[in-house]
Amino acid sequence: MERTSLMDFVEEILAGKVFAISKMISLVERRDPKAFNAMKQLYGKCGRAHIIGVTGPPGAGKSCLVAALVRQFRKKGLSVGVLAVDPSSPFTGGAVLGDRARMEEFSSDPEVFIRSLATRGSVGGLSEAVNGAVDIFDAAGKDIILIETVGVGQNEIDIVNLAHTVVLALVPGYGDWLQAMKAGIMEVGDILVVNKADQPGAGSLLNELCLMPGKTMARDILDNADVRMETWRVPVGLTTAIKGEGTADLASIISMHFQFLKIGNGLSEKNRERRINQFLDLLSKRMREEFVRHYQTDPALRGWIEKIKNLKLDPYQASEQVIDFIVEAREGKIRNKRPTNKKENNQ
Amino acid sequence: MERTSLMDFVEEILAGKVFAISKMISLVERRDPKAFNAMKQLYGKCGRAHIIGVTGPPGAGKSCLVAALVRQFRKKGLSVGVLAVDPSSPFTGGAVLGDRARMEEFSSDPEVFIRSLATRGSVGGLSEAVNGAVDIFDAAGKDIILIETVGVGQNEIDIVNLAHTVVLALVPGYGDWLQAMKAGIMEVGDILVVNKADQPGAGSLLNELCLMPGKTMARDILDNADVRMETWRVPVGLTTAIKGEGTADLASIISMHFQFLKIGNGLSEKNRERRINQFLDLLSKRMREEFVRHYQTDPALRGWIEKIKNLKLDPYQASEQVIDFIVEAREGKIRNKRPTNKKENNQ
Repeated sequence: MERTSLMDFVEEILAGKVFAISKMISLVERRDPKAFNAMKQLYGKCGRAHIIGVTGPPGAGKSCLVAALVRQFRKKGLSVGVLAVDPSSPFTGGAVLGDRARMEEFSSDPEVFIRSLATRGSVGGLSEAVNGAVDIFDAAGKDIILIETVGVGQNEIDIVNLAHTVVLALVPGYGDWLQAMKAGIMEVGDILVVNKADQPGAGSLLNELCLMPGKTMARDILDNADVRMETWRVPVGLTTAIKGEGTADLASIISMHFQFLKIGNGLSEKNRERRINQFLDLLSKRMREEFVRHYQTDPALRGWIEKIKNLKLDPYQASEQVIDFIVEAREGKIRNKRPTNKKENNQ
Repeated sequence: MERTSLMDFVEEILAGKVFAISKMISLVERRDPKAFNAMKQLYGKCGRAHIIGVTGPPGAGKSCLVAALVRQFRKKGLSVGVLAVDPSSPFTGGAVLGDRARMEEFSSDPEVFIRSLATRGSVGGLSEAVNGAVDIFDAAGKDIILIETVGVGQNEIDIVNLAHTVVLALVPGYGDWLQAMKAGIMEVGDILVVNKADQPGAGSLLNELCLMPGKTMARDILDNADVRMETWRVPVGLTTAIKGEGTADLASIISMHFQFLKIGNGLSEKNRERRINQFLDLLSKRMREEFVRHYQTDPALRGWIEKIKNLKLDPYQASEQVIDFIVEAREGKIRNKRPTNKKENNQ
């Protein structure tokens, strides 16, 4: 893509053009070098959206909950981007089939953009794709970005590192609660939701959760709608997303959490952390690619690869040796040339 | 751990001591530096085991199939290590609860070692842990290593890069077959199994699969037990693992595939590829860690981190700049010092 057409393309994304957004996410997904250049342009327009993660075990009704939240945010006139990330879905079936049904309801609304990220074949590329897609939605002017993902720390994309607000959806009657709590899973949500509240056991689960340290009834937060608190007490509420019950309150609490983060230092802190993580992700992936690209022609790198291939050197020692080599090389470089000059040249 | 106690520890693993194996896998899981040193010692003892991946969608009965295969391999007097890797399992529940039941049957058999790998909190660490655990089992003398994992390319650990033989388990009546085939999922198995063959639709699924290019009836392979074929035709067979039906044949076919790989160049080729992938994984992770460790004190690296934190530099440009910096530094190094010397010094 030439510079002019790249700029046109970026302009279309910034203007919220559906085709351009969609194309750009696809480029990011397959790690096209064009995406890399466009992302640099889009980056400056990011930072306005509220990034919300909806997570929980399979069967917690996350998709229904997300659809209900889309309806609620649309009622408030906010534009919404949805990213469905479900690596556990067999055959990317969740991504391919499930969405289609969900898409239909919102297909006539230009202010709602729903996109699935398939992870097949892109080992290690998921967090980069999700981060990229979030930035694209943000730059394209979406007010709300909802990311639906299964599990917590169970897959590559750690929603906690990415979202401003994490909604953990649970359902009554879900197996061994003690196990779940021991596993520390209850610590990830900024908001806990007992979904499918019309099923038996919802009330007792709600009570059980509220008794946990740092948790409170959602009602308490809604009644004293003051977000200038020092620490966020995690509200626990009931929803029956499929009937739309409790979802208006949930949307309100989500927005309150965003206000809370804005008033305190939380929002900028989270944004900083996300950018550092995103950078370290990109760096480690690019290092790998760089190594693969160069080892064919570079005798130093090729030597390592040959020894590993011939099983004469184990990957553990090899990785140590390469790191030592790079670190020593870098230190040599620093002695030869001031790093501050280097940095300034590169800007 | 001092050198003598490290060597004692390594000796215990090589002798197949359960406690040492278990401790070692835990060290690898939490990326303890001690593990790194021990892995270097164990590496030389690897290369004997047959690494088998059992994969498929949730509900395909993978755990039952794995248990049935353990029984079959034990009948042949082979020792077995099992790794259960299920990142989609909520609350690591699959890992914590499911195994306990499965463990019991084999708990009195010292030649069977079952281990779950939980992935919570270890973003990006799963493939390293699985590779490490496989090496530990291999060095400890297990003849067979079975890895159970959900999905294919749906999570971080790509079983195809790791196992010698991949068994793809499917079940009749599983949603939209066309989708699955389009998604290319059928291409990953060295052996296809229609499990739960007592359910309606198993026969027609079997026939449908056999008609696909490169596939054949398992019966054909078993009847002409000649593994000196040029290309492996993927056998498709029926099992009802829970009743033990078809699993003896499956175990035989799995062993035939190993023989096929040994006779051709396949086995050493797969081992080489696995080692290169393992190395590149380790390298990219260690690069990330190295960067995190040094940026606090190193003004060059700190400069980048500060700019990213203050949202003055996007992570995309930053990662490019750091890579350029490293590559240039390395090239400077090469001019100053012969890389071949460097390599030889390090051995």
